[in-house]
Amino acid sequence: MTDFSALLDTIQDFPEDGIAFKDISPLLLQAFPQFIDTMAARIADWDSIDHVAGLEARGFPFAAALAYRHKKGFLMLRKAGKLPPPTVQRAYALEYGKAVLECKPGTGRVLIVDDVLATGGSMTASVDLIRAAGYTPVSTLAASRLSFLEQDLPSEIDHDWVLEI
Amino acid sequence: MTDFSALLDTIQDFPEDGIAFKDISPLLLQAFPQFIDTMAARIADWDSIDHVAGLEARGFPFAAALAYRHKKGFLMLRKAGKLPPPTVQRAYALEYGKAVLECKPGTGRVLIVDDVLATGGSMTASVDLIRAAGYTPVSTLAASRLSFLEQDLPSEIDHDWVLEI
Repeated sequence: MTDFSALLDTIQDFPEDGIAFKDISPLLLQAFPQFIDTMAARIADWDSIDHVAGLEARGFPFAAALAYRHKKGFLMLRKAGKLPPPTVQRAYALEYGKAVLECKPGTGRVLIVDDVLATGGSMTASVDLIRAAGYTPVSTLAASRLSFLEQDLPSEIDHDWVLEI
Repeated sequence: MTDFSALLDTIQDFPEDGIAFKDISPLLLQAFPQFIDTMAARIADWDSIDHVAGLEARGFPFAAALAYRHKKGFLMLRKAGKLPPPTVQRAYALEYGKAVLECKPGTGRVLIVDDVLATGGSMTASVDLIRAAGYTPVSTLAASRLSFLEQDLPSEIDHDWVLEI
């Protein structure tokens, strides 16, 4: 069994002083297929999911590989201004800074995927966004969770992650 | 056989006046696994590839799904400032505007993947970047090519795409 946590680099004071940045680059380069299989095993019922949504940009590789593995659609949750109209938007607070997430309207049951759960702000905004855009959020799955932070996540659906970092 | 081209929306004057934007959202949502299988079939020798690199952000889903399908590493080619040091950079001209691509240094034989070939500027910069970062570029593969533009691409490696749009 690969020690995936050893493939996450910690970079102090990036992108700002006081932030300990978790770099997923080594995990993606050295153990991507194995990690995707491990993520996929966290979902009990893939038949309950129509699409896998990924948060731009580091949620995209995890979400897309999971979508491919289980023959689902891939839905982009993008930063503002990248998608042509019509779109639905949600603003949210980041660990450092603010952002707006945007997606195309549609229907279907959606698993939302991201790389790191920090405060849970972007994941919570994603659940709200998905619902406002017409989809049904089923659950969320993150590659990792920052265990020194408390995540505030919507309680009406399940949330899971692979690595505690 | 799915008509993938029918799943690309054209949006006039986005993100700027005079640009006809090609939106891959319907293709990703409605035919992602089938399209990845079609992309994968364009590569004659997957054994000659160690990693699949994707250009941020719309190259990520295609590259990641291909990497997963063939048990390869996934390499992020990111916009400037997103990756922690050490990185290697290359500046390039976009169809509209300018940008800098950045990646982590490393080794191995790399297939470079993006969503749309327009002028070929970002793909050419990616080939240069990959080589400067220590990898060996093997070939490039795009989901689509804008047939009304001439692509200027480095002649020492092969370039391919699935859709002519």
